[in-house]
Amino acid sequence: MKKYKRLPKHIGVIPDGNRRWAVNAGLNKQEGYNHGIGPGLKLYEACLELGIEEMTYYGFTMDNVKRPSLQTKAFQKACVDSVNELKKRDADLLVIGNTDSKVFPKELLPYAMKRTKFGEGKMKVNFLVNYGWNWDLNHALENDQVVDNKNLIDYIASKDISRMDMVLRWGGRRRLSGFLPIQSIYSDIYVIDEYWPNYKDEHLHEALEWYQETDVTLGG
Amino acid sequence: MKKYKRLPKHIGVIPDGNRRWAVNAGLNKQEGYNHGIGPGLKLYEACLELGIEEMTYYGFTMDNVKRPSLQTKAFQKACVDSVNELKKRDADLLVIGNTDSKVFPKELLPYAMKRTKFGEGKMKVNFLVNYGWNWDLNHALENDQVVDNKNLIDYIASKDISRMDMVLRWGGRRRLSGFLPIQSIYSDIYVIDEYWPNYKDEHLHEALEWYQETDVTLGG
Repeated sequence: MKKYKRLPKHIGVIPDGNRRWAVNAGLNKQEGYNHGIGPGLKLYEACLELGIEEMTYYGFTMDNVKRPSLQTKAFQKACVDSVNELKKRDADLLVIGNTDSKVFPKELLPYAMKRTKFGEGKMKVNFLVNYGWNWDLNHALENDQVVDNKNLIDYIASKDISRMDMVLRWGGRRRLSGFLPIQSIYSDIYVIDEYWPNYKDEHLHEALEWYQETDVTLGG
Repeated sequence: MKKYKRLPKHIGVIPDGNRRWAVNAGLNKQEGYNHGIGPGLKLYEACLELGIEEMTYYGFTMDNVKRPSLQTKAFQKACVDSVNELKKRDADLLVIGNTDSKVFPKELLPYAMKRTKFGEGKMKVNFLVNYGWNWDLNHALENDQVVDNKNLIDYIASKDISRMDMVLRWGGRRRLSGFLPIQSIYSDIYVIDEYWPNYKDEHLHEALEWYQETDVTLGG
Protein backbone atom coordinates (compact mmCIF):
# COMPACT_ATOMS: atom_id res chain seq x y z
CA MET A 1 0.00 0.00 0.00
CA LYS A 2 1.34 3.38 -1.02
CA LYS A 3 2.02 5.89 1.78
CA TYR A 4 1.29 9.61 1.45
CA LYS A 5 2.80 12.50 3.37
CA ARG A 6 -0.44 14.42 3.23
CA LEU A 7 -3.87 12.85 3.35
CA PRO A 8 -7.21 14.58 3.06
CA LYS A 9 -9.24 13.90 6.19
CA HIS A 10 -12.53 13.99 4.33
CA ILE A 11 -13.09 12.98 0.70
CA GLY A 12 -16.29 13.82 -1.19
CA VAL A 13 -17.33 11.63 -4.10
CA ILE A 14 -19.42 12.59 -7.14
CA PRO A 15 -19.98 9.26 -8.92
CA ASP A 16 -21.03 10.65 -12.30
CA GLY A 17 -21.25 8.99 -15.70
CA ASN A 18 -23.35 5.90 -14.94
CA ARG A 19 -25.80 6.56 -17.78
CA ARG A 20 -23.12 7.48 -20.30
CA TRP A 21 -21.26 4.31 -19.34
CA ALA A 22 -24.42 2.23 -19.87
CA VAL A 23 -25.08 3.72 -23.30
CA ASN A 24 -21.46 3.06 -24.33
CA ALA A 25 -21.84 -0.53 -23.14
CA GLY A 26 -24.97 -1.00 -25.24
CA LEU A 27 -27.26 -1.08 -22.20
CA ASN A 28 -30.26 1.02 -21.24
CA LYS A 29 -29.36 4.19 -19.32
CA GLN A 30 -30.86 2.99 -16.04
CA GLU A 31 -28.75 -0.16 -16.10
CA GLY A 32 -25.64 1.90 -15.34
CA TYR A 33 -26.47 2.59 -11.71
CA ASN A 34 -26.24 -1.01 -10.61
CA HIS A 35 -22.69 -1.04 -11.99
CA GLY A 36 -21.82 1.87 -9.71
CA ILE A 37 -22.27 -0.06 -6.45
CA GLY A 38 -19.08 -2.14 -6.70
CA PRO A 39 -16.91 0.92 -7.42
CA GLY A 40 -18.27 2.70 -4.34
CA LEU A 41 -17.31 -0.22 -2.11
CA LYS A 42 -13.90 -0.57 -3.74
CA LEU A 43 -13.18 3.11 -3.19
CA TYR A 44 -14.37 2.85 0.42
CA GLU A 45 -12.05 -0.09 1.09
CA ALA A 46 -9.10 1.76 -0.46
CA CYS A 47 -9.80 4.87 1.63
CA LEU A 48 -10.21 2.78 4.79
CA GLU A 49 -6.82 1.18 4.21
CA LEU A 50 -5.21 4.59 3.71
CA GLY A 51 -6.71 5.90 6.95
CA ILE A 52 -9.12 8.45 5.47
CA GLU A 53 -11.39 9.59 8.32
CA GLU A 54 -14.56 10.60 6.51
CA MET A 55 -16.20 10.11 3.12
CA THR A 56 -19.34 11.56 1.58
CA TYR A 57 -21.11 10.03 -1.41
CA TYR A 58 -23.37 12.16 -3.60
CA GLY A 59 -26.22 9.66 -4.00
CA PHE A 60 -29.15 11.39 -5.69
CA THR A 61 -30.81 14.79 -5.51
CA MET A 62 -34.30 16.18 -5.34
CA ASP A 63 -33.71 17.35 -8.94
CA ASN A 64 -32.56 13.92 -10.14
CA VAL A 65 -35.93 12.38 -9.29
CA LYS A 66 -37.51 14.40 -12.11
CA ARG A 67 -35.88 11.91 -14.49
CA PRO A 68 -37.82 9.02 -16.08
CA SER A 69 -39.19 6.66 -13.46
CA LEU A 70 -37.09 3.67 -14.61
CA GLN A 71 -33.95 5.70 -13.93
CA THR A 72 -35.23 7.03 -10.61
CA LYS A 73 -36.04 3.51 -9.41
CA ALA A 74 -32.60 2.32 -10.50
CA PHE A 75 -30.60 4.96 -8.62
CA GLN A 76 -32.84 4.68 -5.54
CA LYS A 77 -32.11 0.94 -5.45
CA ALA A 78 -28.38 1.50 -6.03
CA CYS A 79 -28.30 3.82 -2.99
CA VAL A 80 -30.17 1.35 -0.78
CA ASP A 81 -27.92 -1.52 -1.88
CA SER A 82 -24.77 0.59 -1.35
CA VAL A 83 -25.80 1.58 2.16
CA ASN A 84 -26.61 -2.04 3.02
CA GLU A 85 -23.16 -3.12 1.86
CA LEU A 86 -21.44 -0.29 3.79
CA LYS A 87 -23.28 -1.48 6.92
CA LYS A 88 -21.44 -4.79 6.61
CA ARG A 89 -18.09 -2.99 6.34
CA ASP A 90 -17.71 -1.08 9.63
CA ALA A 91 -19.10 2.24 8.44
CA ASP A 92 -20.18 4.93 10.90
CA LEU A 93 -23.13 5.87 8.75
CA LEU A 94 -25.13 9.06 8.24
CA VAL A 95 -27.77 9.51 5.53
CA ILE A 96 -28.70 13.12 4.75
CA GLY A 97 -31.63 14.09 2.58
CA ASN A 98 -35.24 15.19 2.47
CA THR A 99 -37.22 12.40 4.12
CA ASP A 100 -40.56 14.25 3.72
CA SER A 101 -41.16 12.70 0.34
CA LYS A 102 -42.18 9.37 -1.15
CA VAL A 103 -39.00 9.33 -3.24
CA PHE A 104 -36.86 8.94 -0.12
CA PRO A 105 -36.32 5.16 0.12
CA LYS A 106 -38.05 3.92 3.29
CA GLU A 107 -35.30 1.33 3.82
CA LEU A 108 -32.93 4.21 4.61
CA LEU A 109 -35.17 6.05 7.08
CA PRO A 110 -33.51 4.44 10.14
CA TYR A 111 -30.17 6.06 9.18
CA ALA A 112 -31.48 9.46 8.14
CA MET A 113 -30.23 12.56 9.96
CA LYS A 114 -28.66 10.47 12.78
CA ARG A 115 -25.29 8.76 12.67
CA THR A 116 -25.31 4.98 13.29
CA LYS A 117 -22.19 2.95 14.00
CA PHE A 118 -21.90 -0.48 12.38
CA GLY A 119 -19.34 -3.05 13.47
CA GLU A 120 -16.25 -1.21 14.63
CA GLY A 121 -17.49 2.03 13.00
CA LYS A 122 -14.10 2.55 11.40
CA MET A 123 -14.94 5.50 9.14
CA LYS A 124 -17.58 8.21 9.04
CA VAL A 125 -19.50 7.63 5.83
CA ASN A 126 -22.14 10.12 4.73
CA PHE A 127 -24.58 9.33 1.97
CA LEU A 128 -26.70 12.05 0.36
CA VAL A 129 -30.09 10.66 -0.58
CA ASN A 130 -32.83 12.89 -2.03
CA TYR A 131 -30.55 15.80 -1.17
CA GLY A 132 -30.96 19.38 -2.37
CA TRP A 133 -28.55 22.24 -1.78
CA ASN A 134 -31.42 24.68 -1.39
CA TRP A 135 -33.27 22.31 0.92
CA ASP A 136 -30.08 21.94 2.98
CA LEU A 137 -29.67 25.70 3.47
CA ASN A 138 -33.37 26.48 3.93
CA HIS A 139 -33.55 23.82 6.65
CA ALA A 140 -31.77 26.36 8.87
CA LEU A 141 -34.76 28.70 8.66
CA GLU A 142 -36.94 26.16 10.41
CA ASN A 143 -34.99 26.60 13.63
CA ASP A 144 -36.19 29.55 15.70
CA GLN A 145 -32.72 30.13 17.10
CA VAL A 146 -31.01 30.81 13.78
CA VAL A 147 -31.97 34.49 13.61
CA ASP A 148 -30.58 35.27 17.09
CA ASN A 149 -27.52 33.08 16.69
CA LYS A 150 -26.76 34.68 13.31
CA ASN A 151 -24.68 31.78 12.05
CA LEU A 152 -26.59 29.95 9.37
CA ILE A 153 -24.21 27.02 8.95
CA ASP A 154 -24.84 25.81 12.51
CA TYR A 155 -28.42 24.97 11.51
CA ILE A 156 -28.24 23.59 7.96
CA ALA A 157 -29.52 20.05 7.40
CA SER A 158 -26.00 18.75 6.71
CA LYS A 159 -24.42 20.37 9.79
CA ASP A 160 -23.06 17.01 10.99
CA ILE A 161 -21.00 16.60 7.81
CA SER A 162 -17.58 18.20 8.14
CA ARG A 163 -15.66 20.30 5.62
CA MET A 164 -14.46 18.22 2.66
CA ASP A 165 -10.74 18.55 1.92
CA MET A 166 -10.96 16.96 -1.50
CA VAL A 167 -13.84 16.32 -3.89
CA LEU A 168 -13.39 13.62 -6.53
CA ARG A 169 -15.69 13.72 -9.52
CA TRP A 170 -15.87 10.98 -12.12
CA GLY A 171 -17.27 11.45 -15.63
CA GLY A 172 -15.25 14.49 -16.72
CA ARG A 173 -17.49 17.38 -15.73
CA ARG A 174 -15.76 20.18 -13.89
CA ARG A 175 -18.44 21.39 -11.55
CA LEU A 176 -19.92 20.75 -8.12
CA SER A 177 -23.60 20.49 -9.14
CA GLY A 178 -24.95 21.42 -5.73
CA PHE A 179 -22.76 18.98 -3.77
CA LEU A 180 -22.75 20.38 -0.19
CA PRO A 181 -22.14 24.06 -1.01
CA ILE A 182 -20.90 24.86 2.50
CA GLN A 183 -18.63 21.86 3.00
CA SER A 184 -17.10 22.24 -0.49
CA ILE A 185 -16.13 25.93 -0.04
CA TYR A 186 -12.40 25.16 0.34
CA SER A 187 -12.32 21.69 -1.24
CA ASP A 188 -9.71 20.82 -3.81
CA ILE A 189 -11.63 19.45 -6.77
CA TYR A 190 -10.12 16.65 -8.81
CA VAL A 191 -11.90 15.44 -11.93
CA ILE A 192 -11.42 11.98 -13.42
CA ASP A 193 -12.52 11.72 -17.04
CA GLU A 194 -13.53 8.05 -16.87
CA TYR A 195 -17.11 7.15 -16.04
CA TRP A 196 -17.83 6.03 -12.50
CA PRO A 197 -18.54 2.34 -13.30
CA ASN A 198 -14.95 2.21 -14.66
CA TYR A 199 -13.52 3.14 -11.23
CA LYS A 200 -10.01 1.88 -10.56
CA ASP A 201 -7.92 2.39 -7.42
CA GLU A 202 -5.39 4.18 -9.63
CA HIS A 203 -7.86 7.06 -9.94
CA LEU A 204 -7.68 7.60 -6.19
CA HIS A 205 -3.90 7.41 -6.19
CA GLU A 206 -3.65 9.85 -9.10
CA ALA A 207 -5.79 12.28 -7.13
CA LEU A 208 -3.72 11.81 -3.99
CA GLU A 209 -0.46 12.32 -5.90
CA TRP A 210 -1.88 15.62 -7.12
CA TYR A 211 -3.08 16.47 -3.61
CA GLN A 212 0.52 16.24 -2.34
CA GLU A 213 1.39 19.29 -4.42
CA THR A 214 -1.52 21.54 -3.47
CA ASP A 215 -1.39 23.79 -0.43
CA VAL A 216 -4.21 24.49 1.93
CA THR A 217 -4.88 28.16 2.65
CA LEU A 218 -8.54 28.13 3.77
CA GLY A 219 -8.95 31.61 2.34
CA GLY A 220 -6.06 33.14 4.34
CA MET B 1 -12.66 37.83 -33.54
CA LYS B 2 -13.44 34.18 -33.00
CA LYS B 3 -17.14 33.22 -32.92
CA TYR B 4 -18.53 30.59 -30.54
CA LYS B 5 -21.71 28.58 -30.85
CA ARG B 6 -22.24 28.58 -27.14
CA LEU B 7 -21.30 31.44 -24.85
CA PRO B 8 -21.58 31.59 -21.07
CA LYS B 9 -23.83 34.48 -20.09
CA HIS B 10 -21.96 35.11 -16.88
CA ILE B 11 -18.26 34.50 -16.25
CA GLY B 12 -16.73 34.52 -12.77
CA VAL B 13 -13.04 35.35 -12.40
CA ILE B 14 -10.64 34.23 -9.66
CA PRO B 15 -7.47 36.22 -10.39
CA ASP B 16 -5.07 34.12 -8.30
CA GLY B 17 -1.28 33.93 -8.33
CA ASN B 18 -0.30 37.62 -8.00
CA ARG B 19 2.08 36.99 -5.11
CA ARG B 20 3.63 33.89 -6.64
CA TRP B 21 4.13 35.85 -9.87
CA ALA B 22 5.85 38.66 -7.96
CA VAL B 23 8.19 36.30 -6.14
CA ASN B 24 9.10 34.63 -9.45
CA ALA B 25 9.78 38.06 -10.94
CA GLY B 26 12.13 38.94 -8.08
CA LEU B 27 9.68 41.46 -6.58
CA ASN B 28 8.10 41.70 -3.15
CA LYS B 29 4.86 39.78 -2.79
CA GLN B 30 2.68 42.89 -2.54
CA GLU B 31 4.03 44.23 -5.81
CA GLY B 32 2.13 41.56 -7.73
CA TYR B 33 -1.33 43.05 -7.26
CA ASN B 34 -0.61 46.17 -9.28
CA HIS B 35 0.31 43.89 -12.18
CA GLY B 36 -3.14 42.32 -11.98
CA ILE B 37 -5.05 45.46 -12.98
CA GLY B 38 -4.13 45.43 -16.68
CA PRO B 39 -5.11 41.75 -17.09
CA GLY B 40 -8.53 42.45 -15.57
CA LEU B 41 -9.21 45.21 -18.08
CA LYS B 42 -7.89 43.15 -20.99
CA LEU B 43 -10.18 40.26 -20.04
CA TYR B 44 -13.14 42.65 -19.67
CA GLU B 45 -12.52 44.09 -23.15
CA ALA B 46 -12.28 40.59 -24.66
CA CYS B 47 -15.53 39.51 -22.98
CA LEU B 48 -17.28 42.71 -24.05
CA GLU B 49 -16.30 42.06 -27.67
CA LEU B 50 -17.60 38.50 -27.46
CA GLY B 51 -20.94 39.66 -26.06
CA ILE B 52 -20.64 38.21 -22.56
CA GLU B 53 -23.50 39.71 -20.50
CA GLU B 54 -22.11 39.63 -16.98
CA MET B 55 -18.75 39.24 -15.23
CA THR B 56 -17.82 38.92 -11.57
CA TYR B 57 -14.33 39.56 -10.23
CA TYR B 58 -13.23 38.03 -6.93
CA GLY B 59 -11.45 41.08 -5.50
CA PHE B 60 -10.53 40.39 -1.89
CA THR B 61 -12.15 38.68 1.07
CA MET B 62 -12.65 39.35 4.76
CA ASP B 63 -10.09 36.57 5.33
CA ASN B 64 -7.52 38.07 2.95
CA VAL B 65 -7.24 41.21 5.09
CA LYS B 66 -5.60 39.14 7.83
CA ARG B 67 -2.48 39.20 5.64
CA PRO B 68 0.46 41.57 6.29
CA SER B 69 -0.61 45.21 6.01
CA LEU B 70 1.62 45.95 3.00
CA GLN B 71 -0.20 43.23 1.05
CA THR B 72 -3.62 44.34 2.26
CA LYS B 73 -2.96 47.92 1.20
CA ALA B 74 -1.72 46.73 -2.19
CA PHE B 75 -4.81 44.62 -3.05
CA GLN B 76 -7.19 47.27 -1.70
CA LYS B 77 -5.56 49.80 -4.04
CA ALA B 78 -5.63 47.37 -6.97
CA CYS B 79 -9.39 46.93 -6.49
CA VAL B 80 -10.02 50.69 -6.30
CA ASP B 81 -7.89 51.30 -9.40
CA SER B 82 -9.61 48.47 -11.30
CA VAL B 83 -13.08 49.78 -10.50
CA ASN B 84 -12.06 53.29 -11.56
CA GLU B 85 -10.82 51.96 -14.88
CA LEU B 86 -13.98 49.89 -15.43
CA LYS B 87 -16.03 53.06 -14.85
CA LYS B 88 -14.34 54.56 -17.92
CA ARG B 89 -15.25 51.50 -20.00
CA ASP B 90 -19.07 51.37 -19.99
CA ALA B 91 -19.46 48.96 -17.08
CA ASP B 92 -22.81 48.57 -15.31
CA LEU B 93 -21.12 48.25 -11.95
CA LEU B 94 -21.99 46.56 -8.67
CA VAL B 95 -19.60 46.24 -5.72
CA ILE B 96 -20.54 43.59 -3.16
CA GLY B 97 -18.85 43.26 0.21
CA ASN B 98 -18.96 44.09 3.88
CA THR B 99 -18.91 47.88 4.09
CA ASP B 100 -19.16 47.88 7.92
CA SER B 101 -15.40 47.80 8.30
CA LYS B 102 -12.45 50.13 7.91
CA VAL B 103 -10.86 47.71 5.44
CA PHE B 104 -13.60 48.39 2.89
CA PRO B 105 -12.07 51.13 0.67
CA LYS B 106 -14.13 54.30 1.14
CA GLU B 107 -13.60 55.21 -2.53
CA LEU B 108 -15.85 52.27 -3.43
CA LEU B 109 -18.69 53.04 -1.03
CA PRO B 110 -20.76 54.85 -3.71
CA TYR B 111 -20.98 51.63 -5.76
CA ALA B 112 -21.56 49.20 -2.90
CA MET B 113 -24.73 47.10 -2.88
CA LYS B 114 -26.35 49.21 -5.64
CA ARG B 115 -25.72 48.87 -9.36
CA THR B 116 -24.48 52.01 -11.15
CA LYS B 117 -24.41 52.39 -14.93
CA PHE B 118 -21.40 54.13 -16.46
CA GLY B 119 -21.37 55.39 -20.05
CA GLU B 120 -23.50 53.05 -22.10
CA GLY B 121 -23.50 50.44 -19.31
CA LYS B 122 -22.64 47.69 -21.80
CA MET B 123 -21.97 44.86 -19.37
CA LYS B 124 -22.95 44.00 -15.80
CA VAL B 125 -19.69 43.88 -13.87
CA ASN B 126 -19.68 42.75 -10.25
CA PHE B 127 -16.66 43.27 -8.04
CA LEU B 128 -16.35 41.48 -4.70
CA VAL B 129 -14.58 43.70 -2.20
CA ASN B 130 -14.14 42.64 1.44
CA TYR B 131 -16.46 39.76 0.64
CA GLY B 132 -17.05 36.71 2.81
CA TRP B 133 -19.16 33.67 1.89
CA ASN B 134 -20.38 33.36 5.44
CA TRP B 135 -21.14 37.09 5.64
CA ASP B 136 -23.03 36.79 2.33
CA LEU B 137 -25.26 33.97 3.61
CA ASN B 138 -25.74 35.33 7.13
CA HIS B 139 -26.85 38.66 5.65
CA ALA B 140 -30.14 36.90 4.89
CA LEU B 141 -30.81 36.44 8.61
CA GLU B 142 -30.97 40.20 9.11
CA ASN B 143 -34.15 40.40 7.09
CA ASP B 144 -37.27 39.67 9.14
CA GLN B 145 -39.07 38.22 6.13
CA VAL B 146 -36.62 35.39 5.48
CA VAL B 147 -38.12 32.99 8.01
CA ASP B 148 -41.67 33.32 6.60
CA ASN B 149 -40.53 33.35 2.98
CA LYS B 150 -38.39 30.26 3.59
CA ASN B 151 -36.09 30.90 0.62
CA LEU B 152 -32.73 31.97 1.89
CA ILE B 153 -31.17 32.87 -1.45
CA ASP B 154 -33.67 35.70 -2.02
CA TYR B 155 -32.10 37.56 0.91
CA ILE B 156 -28.35 36.91 0.68
CA ALA B 157 -26.08 39.95 0.29
CA SER B 158 -25.16 38.96 -3.27
CA LYS B 159 -28.76 38.36 -4.42
CA ASP B 160 -28.32 40.82 -7.32
CA ILE B 161 -25.53 38.72 -8.80
CA SER B 162 -26.87 36.03 -11.15
CA ARG B 163 -25.80 32.38 -11.47
CA MET B 164 -22.33 32.05 -13.00
CA ASP B 165 -22.16 29.73 -16.00
CA MET B 166 -18.38 29.49 -15.99
CA VAL B 167 -15.75 30.24 -13.39
CA LEU B 168 -12.19 30.88 -14.56
CA ARG B 169 -9.42 30.54 -12.03
CA TRP B 170 -5.82 31.52 -12.71
CA GLY B 171 -2.85 30.23 -10.71
CA GLY B 172 -3.49 26.50 -10.94
CA ARG B 173 -5.54 25.82 -7.80
CA ARG B 174 -8.62 23.71 -8.36
CA ARG B 175 -11.02 25.12 -5.82
CA LEU B 176 -13.62 27.84 -5.35
CA SER B 177 -12.27 29.32 -2.09
CA GLY B 178 -15.59 30.80 -1.02
CA PHE B 179 -16.35 32.50 -4.35
CA LEU B 180 -20.14 33.06 -4.30
CA PRO B 181 -21.21 29.61 -3.03
CA ILE B 182 -24.77 30.02 -4.32
CA GLN B 183 -23.99 31.45 -7.75
CA SER B 184 -21.25 28.85 -8.35
CA ILE B 185 -23.45 25.81 -7.62
CA TYR B 186 -23.75 24.79 -11.29
CA SER B 187 -20.72 26.66 -12.69
CA ASP B 188 -18.28 24.93 -14.97
CA ILE B 189 -14.88 25.52 -13.44
CA TYR B 190 -11.89 26.01 -15.72
CA VAL B 191 -8.44 26.35 -14.21
CA ILE B 192 -5.52 28.07 -15.96
CA ASP B 193 -2.14 27.15 -14.53
CA GLU B 194 -0.48 30.47 -15.34
CA TYR B 195 -0.47 33.23 -12.73
CA TRP B 196 -3.00 36.03 -13.16
CA PRO B 197 -0.49 38.79 -14.10
CA ASN B 198 0.47 36.57 -17.08
CA TYR B 199 -3.10 36.75 -18.46
CA LYS B 200 -3.40 36.33 -22.23
CA ASP B 201 -6.59 36.40 -24.32
CA GLU B 202 -5.71 32.84 -25.38
CA HIS B 203 -6.58 31.69 -21.85
CA LEU B 204 -10.14 32.90 -22.36
CA HIS B 205 -10.37 31.26 -25.77
CA GLU B 206 -8.98 27.98 -24.41
CA ALA B 207 -11.67 28.03 -21.76
CA LEU B 208 -14.40 28.83 -24.28
CA GLU B 209 -13.23 26.04 -26.59
CA TRP B 210 -13.60 23.67 -23.67
CA TYR B 211 -16.98 25.18 -22.79
CA GLN B 212 -18.29 24.24 -26.25
CA GLU B 213 -17.97 20.58 -25.30
CA THR B 214 -19.61 20.67 -21.88
CA ASP B 215 -23.33 20.29 -21.45
CA VAL B 216 -25.52 22.16 -19.02
CA THR B 217 -27.82 20.01 -16.89
CA LEU B 218 -28.50 22.28 -13.87
CA GLY B 219 -28.84 19.19 -11.72
CA GLY B 220 -31.54 17.57 -13.90
